[in-house]
Amino acid sequence: MSILVVGSVALDDIETPFGRVQGALGGAATYFAAVASLYDRVNLVGVVGTDFPGQHIDFLVERGVDIRGLQIAQGKTFHWAGRYDYDLNTAVTLATDLNVFADFRPALPEDYRASEYVFLANIDPDLQISVLEQVQAPRLIALDTMNYWIEHKREALTEALRRVQVVLVNEAEARQYAGTYSLIEAARAILSLGPQALVVKKGEYGAVLFTNGDLASTYFFAPAYPLERVADPTGAGDSFAGGFVGFLARSGRITPRTIRQAIVHGSVAASFAVEGFSLERIRNVTLEDIHRRYQAFRGFTSFEASCPWLETCERFREVELCDSET
Amino acid sequence: MSILVVGSVALDDIETPFGRVQGALGGAATYFAAVASLYDRVNLVGVVGTDFPGQHIDFLVERGVDIRGLQIAQGKTFHWAGRYDYDLNTAVTLATDLNVFADFRPALPEDYRASEYVFLANIDPDLQISVLEQVQAPRLIALDTMNYWIEHKREALTEALRRVQVVLVNEAEARQYAGTYSLIEAARAILSLGPQALVVKKGEYGAVLFTNGDLASTYFFAPAYPLERVADPTGAGDSFAGGFVGFLARSGRITPRTIRQAIVHGSVAASFAVEGFSLERIRNVTLEDIHRRYQAFRGFTSFEASCPWLETCERFREVELCDSET
Repeated sequence: MSILVVGSVALDDIETPFGRVQGALGGAATYFAAVASLYDRVNLVGVVGTDFPGQHIDFLVERGVDIRGLQIAQGKTFHWAGRYDYDLNTAVTLATDLNVFADFRPALPEDYRASEYVFLANIDPDLQISVLEQVQAPRLIALDTMNYWIEHKREALTEALRRVQVVLVNEAEARQYAGTYSLIEAARAILSLGPQALVVKKGEYGAVLFTNGDLASTYFFAPAYPLERVADPTGAGDSFAGGFVGFLARSGRITPRTIRQAIVHGSVAASFAVEGFSLERIRNVTLEDIHRRYQAFRGFTSFEASCPWLETCERFREVELCDSET
Repeated sequence: MSILVVGSVALDDIETPFGRVQGALGGAATYFAAVASLYDRVNLVGVVGTDFPGQHIDFLVERGVDIRGLQIAQGKTFHWAGRYDYDLNTAVTLATDLNVFADFRPALPEDYRASEYVFLANIDPDLQISVLEQVQAPRLIALDTMNYWIEHKREALTEALRRVQVVLVNEAEARQYAGTYSLIEAARAILSLGPQALVVKKGEYGAVLFTNGDLASTYFFAPAYPLERVADPTGAGDSFAGGFVGFLARSGRITPRTIRQAIVHGSVAASFAVEGFSLERIRNVTLEDIHRRYQAFRGFTSFEASCPWLETCERFREVELCDSET
């Protein structure tokens, strides 16, 4: 299997109540690739300027990321500056300097075209479509987007949504796209375009899966991993996507169960991302670390009989409430 | 078993984007009793004015609620008026007329004193303590509170917290009491006072359980039941408490497992409460209805092997990712 990611590679200035970094490695494609490369081979398509530090390239290469698709253009690397207050759920953007990213036109090296899993990170939906025209027959395409494209490029975004299997967006974006406060209605609207799954990321509140079919039997919810301390929420969503797509690629199967497991992997990956500034923590994470938190997730939501985390109690049936300890 | 609830019985004016009601039955003790009475016998202590409609008394009596502890005082019933906007998570209080509730002094009829499960709904912590001095030896005492008491009666509230087993509050209240943005730190501060469990209600984002011990092995999260439409969030927290305490009383056992199951019952009860204005929907709910949604909850969070909702897949071990369908 191989995974293709197309998106931003950036240098970020980030300030949170717990510290600050300047010119730190960032960008959606970077976070995604750093995580997904733990699971499988990642092909990266993006652009950086001539100011991009060689050590960041080295990090990606060490991680096994194929960077032949990373263009180096004359000029400066995409730069984002943002601040988070104690409510770490929302970033205040202080500066967005597109620089070389303004003229980014994704061009896939020939052997990237056979990539089986594709993640279209948040970029202009016209560019997302141009990527879809360059890939051959991927097994799964997942897409992220943002409020700017929903507002300014709705038509192109809708066309892109029609052509993907999984949509990964946050709560506000799902509501904004569908023009409704009801997340269930929003999910229905997005799924009606063609995608088989909508994963709604809710930050510290976890993530939700919607698929077609009766809600009571298809809905899935994964909490966020409980953390003592969140240092920097930047990249949480893209790290989530990296764990999600990475797990599916590595498992080689796309089923209702593996999609649920992939969401838990996404949630675990995001939990590591936010523990450090920039890619600090992700840099040192292993698949074993991810697996350990994945195992803990089973306990976070188990309340029933048949799950080994809790002792057997089979008597909660037909309004016979559980009254046995064995 | 029998359940004691002490708290407000009110007449509410409520406005949401989906409608409005005036002079409708409300109050924390009412919502709690209406739900908990589905599970077990409920003893209610509260006060209403002479304007309180007899039909509401009839409803409680039909539900099997023992209302000998409901005082009828000269004057008007406690009245609350509030409005919710599309963001149904926060109420804007338009009026709070305490009326007869201002002089409320809980007095337990003699045979209420042996109640085994006690819910101290949100009232002045000094009154909560006075209830604790009237009960004999309950198996479980659960307590709710609100921002007003945290700010103005912190000392009495702390004393009350020391004397209960379960604290049921919302996210903002837990953070406010502990003076920290970290919910985990807040939980630690509250549990250090004595309670064995802290249940944090997060509205549409579900509910979380903290108990003493290693977080990775004790943390529990229950999502909110996914609803097409929320009519009126009033009473969600007290209905949650009704399902929570009701289930524990009926099951007769307080264990890590039954506490988790009780949280799911609370979440289900809250989901019914918010589907109608006032007690409209709760009025017609049966234990069978609750059981049906409880069953669906198993599917909402299952992603593993050993849970029957998903086929068996035992091979996700030691970073061997799941790659088998059988």
